[in-house]
Amino acid sequence: MRYREAGVDIERASALKDALVRAVAATHGPAVRPLPGGFAGVMEWPGGGRLLAATMDGVGTKLHLALAAGRVADAAADLVYHGANDLLVHGARPLAFLDYIAQSRLDPAVVLAIVEGLSRACFEVGAALLGGETAEMPDTYLPGVVDVAGCMLGCVKGDSVLEGGAVRAGDVVLGLGSSGLHTNGYSLARRVVAESGQPLDRPLPGGGGESLGDALLQPHRWYGRAIQPLLETEEVHAMAHVTGGGLGGNLRRVLPEGLRARLRASAWPRPALFGWLIRAGEIPEADAREAFNLGIGWVVVCPSETAEIVGTKLRAAGETVWEIGSVIAGERGVEWDT
Amino acid sequence: MRYREAGVDIERASALKDALVRAVAATHGPAVRPLPGGFAGVMEWPGGGRLLAATMDGVGTKLHLALAAGRVADAAADLVYHGANDLLVHGARPLAFLDYIAQSRLDPAVVLAIVEGLSRACFEVGAALLGGETAEMPDTYLPGVVDVAGCMLGCVKGDSVLEGGAVRAGDVVLGLGSSGLHTNGYSLARRVVAESGQPLDRPLPGGGGESLGDALLQPHRWYGRAIQPLLETEEVHAMAHVTGGGLGGNLRRVLPEGLRARLRASAWPRPALFGWLIRAGEIPEADAREAFNLGIGWVVVCPSETAEIVGTKLRAAGETVWEIGSVIAGERGVEWDT
Repeated sequence: MRYREAGVDIERASALKDALVRAVAATHGPAVRPLPGGFAGVMEWPGGGRLLAATMDGVGTKLHLALAAGRVADAAADLVYHGANDLLVHGARPLAFLDYIAQSRLDPAVVLAIVEGLSRACFEVGAALLGGETAEMPDTYLPGVVDVAGCMLGCVKGDSVLEGGAVRAGDVVLGLGSSGLHTNGYSLARRVVAESGQPLDRPLPGGGGESLGDALLQPHRWYGRAIQPLLETEEVHAMAHVTGGGLGGNLRRVLPEGLRARLRASAWPRPALFGWLIRAGEIPEADAREAFNLGIGWVVVCPSETAEIVGTKLRAAGETVWEIGSVIAGERGVEWDT
Repeated sequence: MRYREAGVDIERASALKDALVRAVAATHGPAVRPLPGGFAGVMEWPGGGRLLAATMDGVGTKLHLALAAGRVADAAADLVYHGANDLLVHGARPLAFLDYIAQSRLDPAVVLAIVEGLSRACFEVGAALLGGETAEMPDTYLPGVVDVAGCMLGCVKGDSVLEGGAVRAGDVVLGLGSSGLHTNGYSLARRVVAESGQPLDRPLPGGGGESLGDALLQPHRWYGRAIQPLLETEEVHAMAHVTGGGLGGNLRRVLPEGLRARLRASAWPRPALFGWLIRAGEIPEADAREAFNLGIGWVVVCPSETAEIVGTKLRAAGETVWEIGSVIAGERGVEWDT
C-alpha cells in the first residue's frame, strides 16, 4: 500500500506548494523573514525587538478515529501541540491560539469536547485560546464528522530566532522519541487498519498489551518543556518537528545548501505500532519513512562538542534521546545509512 | 422561510457559545483583555506598548455560489476583508493572515485561485499572507466543494484600542453602506434562490440590470481605507462590523450595560437584493434583520457634536453614510423605530 493511494498525494501537493509560494510573495513586505522551508511564518512585530511567529494546521483524519473512540478532545489537543511545536522549531514561545470547527450540523457535545481539549492543551503550552469560529455547513461536510483547524501565534526575541543557516558539517543529529503517529499518516494508518480487520480494542501485536486503538490515539507530544530551557543555555543550530514528509522531509527543511544529513535507521528502536502498520499494510520502507515519524518526533542539530550535554539535559527533562546521525558536506538533503 | 431552517440555528449556536466561553477562560492569563462581545481577541504583546488582535473566520456557503460561478478567488478575498474588518472594530491594523483550505480531493486550480484571491486582498488590507495549510480529506468533505478558513492578526497601540465602554447616551449611530450580503446569510439566500427558480444570470428584479448572481457575489467591503484615517483625527466611541446576527446583533456587542441603540430602518434605502430575497423567500422582517445586513455593513458610534464632521470625512473617503439612530439610556440592546 503506497501513501498516495490512501488519500494524500505528497508530490502533487508539493508542486502546488511552489505555485502558492509565488502567489503569496506579493504580500510579503520587508517585515517578513524569508523562510522558504520554515515550520511557521515569522515576521517583525511593529516597534521592534520581537518577532511574530504563526502557523496554521488542521488535525486531519486522526479526528475520525478519535470520534469513533469518543476521544475527540484528545485529538483537538493534538492540534495545539502540533502548532506549538511548529513555533518551537524557530525558538518561538506560544502566545495565543484560534480555532475553526466545522460540521454538517454542529453537535454541541462534539464542539464543546473539542474546545475543552484545545483549552487544556493551550494551558499546557502557555497559549491563550484567544478566538474561534464554528461553522455549520450541510452542503460542505459529510454528516457525523467534524473538521478542526487552528492557528498558533507566538513570539520570539529577534536575536533568539532559529531561522536555519547555523548548521555546520560535523554537527550531530539527535532524535527525540515520539509517542506514536502524532498527527501524521492517519489516512494511511486508517486504511491499513480497515483492510487488516484488526479490531481497535484488541492488543497491538508486539505492543505489550496496549490496544491498537490506544496506540493509534496516543497524544501528539509537546516538546517545549524540554526544549525551551535547553535553548536558554545550549547552542542549538537547528531543530525539526517530524510531521508530514517524515524525518527526512522535515530535517531537510532546516539544512542549508551544501549540507546533508546522514541518518542511521538502526540508531533507535522502531516502536511496535509502526512495525505492525508496515507489515500489515505491506508498506514499502521508503513510503513508511515519508508517511510516518517511525519513532522520532523531534530533531535537534547541535555542535558535536556539546551533543552529549544536550542529550543529558534532554533526558533529564524526560525525553528519550538517540544520536541518529550527523551532518556532512554534500548536496542538500537527507540520506539513510542502514 | 425562517433563518434556522436554512441551515444555521443562531439560538442554539448562542447557547453553545456560553459553554465555550467557560471552557476557554482557564487559558486567559492577565495579558488577555476581557472582551466578551469582541469582534476579535485582544491581548498584550510581550514587551508592552502594543496589543495583539486576532480573529478566525470561515468564508461559509458563499463559496458554493462562487464555485458555481467560477469566482472562488473573490469569495476567498472576502474572507480577508471580513477578518480585517473584525480587527478594525478594535482599532487594530491587519498585519498577517494564515489560511486553511480543505477539500475531499485537492483541486490545484481551486486551491491556487483561492490563494491568489487571499493574496490580492491581503495586499489591499496591508497584511502578509504568512502561512497556510491545505488538507485533502475524502472522508470529511463532500466531493467537489471546498472550505476555507483563515486567521487575521493585527496590532494596535495600547492607548488606541477600542474595547467598548466609551459609548454615551446621546451618541449618534452612523451606518456605512454594504455592497451586498458580504459574507453572511448565504445559507438562507441560496435556499431562496433555489426555491424561487430565478436564474442567476438573469437581472435581479429592481436591480438596475445587474444579474442576481453578480449581486449575490459582490465582494465584502473593506472599511479600513475610510476608517483608519478617521481614527487618527476624530473621537469614535465604538464601531461594529455587521456580520452574522445582523445590524442589531452586532451593534449590541459594543454597547455597555445601561445603554441601548434606537435605530430607524427608514433612514437608509433597502438595496434591491435584500428586498427581492425577503419577498421571494417570504422572510419575516425580524428574521431578515438577523440574517442579513440589509444595506448597512459598518457602524460608527460617535458623539453627536462630531457626527457631522465624521460623516463628511467618511463620505470624502468614498463611503455612503446615513445617520441611522442614536444611543439612549435603557436596558442594553437595540430597538427599531420604523
